[in-house]
Amino acid sequence: MSTELNLPAVTVLGLGPMGRSLAHAFLAAGARTTVWNRTPGKDRELTERGAAGAATAEEAVSASELTVVCVVNYDASDAILRADDVTRALKGRTVVNLTADTPGRARDTAQWAAAHGIDYLDGAIMTPAPSIGTPEAVFLHSGPSGLYARHLPVLELLGGTHTHLGEETGRAATFDIALLDIFWTAMAGYAHAVAIARAEGVTARELAPLAQGIAAILPPLFEGFAADADSGTYSGEINPITSAVSTMAHVVEVSESHGIDAGVMRAVEGMARRVIGLGHGTDGFIRVAEMLGRH
Amino acid sequence: MSTELNLPAVTVLGLGPMGRSLAHAFLAAGARTTVWNRTPGKDRELTERGAAGAATAEEAVSASELTVVCVVNYDASDAILRADDVTRALKGRTVVNLTADTPGRARDTAQWAAAHGIDYLDGAIMTPAPSIGTPEAVFLHSGPSGLYARHLPVLELLGGTHTHLGEETGRAATFDIALLDIFWTAMAGYAHAVAIARAEGVTARELAPLAQGIAAILPPLFEGFAADADSGTYSGEINPITSAVSTMAHVVEVSESHGIDAGVMRAVEGMARRVIGLGHGTDGFIRVAEMLGRH
Ligand SMILES: NC(=O)c1ccc[n+]([C@@H]2O[C@H](COP(=O)([O-])OP(=O)(O)OC[C@H]3O[C@@H](n4cnc5c(N)ncnc54)[C@H](OP(=O)(O)O)[C@@H]3O)[C@@H](O)[C@H]2O)c1
Ligand SMILES: NC(=O)c1ccc[n+]([C@@H]2O[C@H](COP(=O)([O-])OP(=O)(O)OC[C@H]3O[C@@H](n4cnc5c(N)ncnc54)[C@H](OP(=O)(O)O)[C@@H]3O)[C@@H](O)[C@H]2O)c1
Repeated sequence: MSTELNLPAVTVLGLGPMGRSLAHAFLAAGARTTVWNRTPGKDRELTERGAAGAATAEEAVSASELTVVCVVNYDASDAILRADDVTRALKGRTVVNLTADTPGRARDTAQWAAAHGIDYLDGAIMTPAPSIGTPEAVFLHSGPSGLYARHLPVLELLGGTHTHLGEETGRAATFDIALLDIFWTAMAGYAHAVAIARAEGVTARELAPLAQGIAAILPPLFEGFAADADSGTYSGEINPITSAVSTMAHVVEVSESHGIDAGVMRAVEGMARRVIGLGHGTDGFIRVAEMLGRH
Repeated sequence: MSTELNLPAVTVLGLGPMGRSLAHAFLAAGARTTVWNRTPGKDRELTERGAAGAATAEEAVSASELTVVCVVNYDASDAILRADDVTRALKGRTVVNLTADTPGRARDTAQWAAAHGIDYLDGAIMTPAPSIGTPEAVFLHSGPSGLYARHLPVLELLGGTHTHLGEETGRAATFDIALLDIFWTAMAGYAHAVAIARAEGVTARELAPLAQGIAAILPPLFEGFAADADSGTYSGEINPITSAVSTMAHVVEVSESHGIDAGVMRAVEGMARRVIGLGHGTDGFIRVAEMLGRH
C-alpha cells in the first residue's frame, strides 16, 4: 500500500475559524475529508467543495483512520470525544488534538486515550487561521514518535512547518502556553499603546510603522535573554532594571492622566520593583523570570 | 562656514549606558565631544579616546553650540539644566533632550527653554545602547523644523534613522511612551513565559526559537489591527475575543498551578472579559484599545 495511490482520509471535528481552515486545507490537498461540528450548518461551504458532512461525531470519526479535533478547549473536546459512542468508534484509530489547553489537560487526555485503545497525539497551532495551508503555518506536536511519523504525511497536507517536541504529551501544550503568554501579553501592550497614542492625538496608523519596528527588535533580544536566563547571569549593563522601571512608571502616568486603565503596566512595573526590592536593581529586566519562578 | 571644514562640536550630559554610547558615537564620527556626568569618573574611557571631560555641567554646555542630554528622566535633566549657572550658559545655544519621560514633561521643558532663550528639541531613542552608531539605531525627534534641520547633520553622526515627528514638542515622547508600552509589556510576557516553560521542564533556550517565531508574526498583525482600530471595525472573524480569552485563562491556570504570579495575564484577561461583558464577544482582541479609551 502506498499513500501516493490511496487518497488519505481524515476527519475534522470542530468547524470554528480554525477547524474550517484545517478542513479547507485538507480538501485543497486532495484528502477525503469528513467534517462535523456541534452546531449544524457550519459545514456548508466545505460540503459544497466536496467534504463529507457527518450527521454525528460518531459517524464522523468512523469515516477515517485519523481524526483531527480543533475546538475551543478540552472541556469541548472532552464533551465530543468522551461520549460513549464516539470513544467506542475511535478504538484502534488515531486522534490528533489541535485544541489549545493546558499541559495537564493534554496529559489527562492521553491517559484516557490509552485506556480506551485510542492512539493519541497532542498538538498546537501557533499561527492564525488564514496561515493554514500556507508555508507560514506553524504546528507543534508531542506524543509517540512512531505514531507521529505515521501520520505526518497527512498532517503535512496542512502546509507550514510541523515540529515534534518530544514523546511527553504535555510538551506541545507547554510551548503553546508559553507562546500564547508572549503573544497575548504583547497584543495587550499594543492595544494599550494605541489607546494612549490616540489620547495624545496620534492615530493607530501613525503609530503602526514604529510599533512594527519595536516588534522587530524583539527576536534578537529574546535570544540574548534566553542565554542570560539559562546561565543565571542577568546583566543590566546595557539597560539596568532601575532604568527600565522609570520608563514603565511614565507609561502608567501618561495612561492614567488620560483616564486609561494601566493595570497591565502596573503589574509589569510591580514585578520590576520587586526585583529591585530583592536587591537586583543593577540586573537586567529578564531577572523577572527568575524571581517569578522562585517561591 | 561649512560643516565639512569645521569639526562639529557637541556636549553630552549624562554618562549612563546610553549617554556613553552617544558620546562614543560622536567621538568615532570625529566630533569635538565634551562630556559630563553627575557622578565623576564615568568619563574615563571617553577622555582616553579624546573627549574633553568637563568638571561641571556649566563648563560642559559652554563648550559647544549643541548639548545632548540623556539621563534617567526629566527630574534628572531638570536637576542639571535648571541650575542657574547652567541655564545662563545655555542661553543662545541648543539642547536636544534624548531622555525618556512623558509628553507633558517634554512640553514643560520646551516652555522653560523658550523662557530662557534656549533652543530646544525633544527626542527619544527607541533602540538599545549597543545600536548607537550603527544603522539599527532609531531616533525620534520633535520641535521646531528649522532647528531640527540645522542640527540634523550633527545628530546623524549617531548613525541610524532620525525621524522628525512634528513641531509639537510632545510628539516624540508620545511615540516613545506608546512604543515603551509595547516593548515592556512584550518583555514581561517573555519573562513570564520563560518562568512557565521552566516550571514545565523546558529551558529558555529551547523556547527561544519559537518565541522568536511568535515575535515575527506581530508586525503584520500590528498593521492590520491599526487599520481596524482607526476604522472602528474590530472583526473577530479570524479570532473572536471569546476564543482568545479562553487561551488567556489557560496561561493563568498553568502559571498559578506552579505558584507563579500571573498578575499581568490576569490584567490582560480582565480587559478581554470586560470587552465581552460590554457585548462585543464576537469582535477581535484589538477592541480592547477602544474600550480603554472610552470612559
Ligand atoms: N483562530 C485562530 O486564528 C487560532 C490560532 C491558533 C490556535 N487556535 C486554536 O484553535 C482552536 C479552535 O479555535 P477556533 O478559531 O476555531 O474558534 P473557537 O471559538 O476557539 O472554537 C470554536 C469551536 O469550538 C466548538 N465548541 C465550543 N464549545 C463546544 C462544546 N462544549 N462542545 C463541542 N464543541 C464546542 C465550536 O462549536 P459550535 O460551533 O457548536 O459552538 C466550534 O467548533 C482553539 O483552541 C484556538 O485557541 C485558533
Ligand atoms: N540603555 C538603553 O539601552 C536605552 C535605550 C533607549 C532609551 N534609553 C533612555 O536613555 C536614558 C538614559 O539611559 P541610560 O541607559 O544611560 O541609564 P539610566 O540609568 O536611565 O540613566 C543614568 C544616567 O542618569 C543620571 N542621573 C540619574 N539621576 C540623576 C540626577 N538626579 N541628576 C543628574 N543625573 C542623574 C546618571 O548619573 P549618575 O551616574 O550620577 O547616577 C546617569 O548619567 C533613559 O531615559 C533611558 O530610558 C536607554
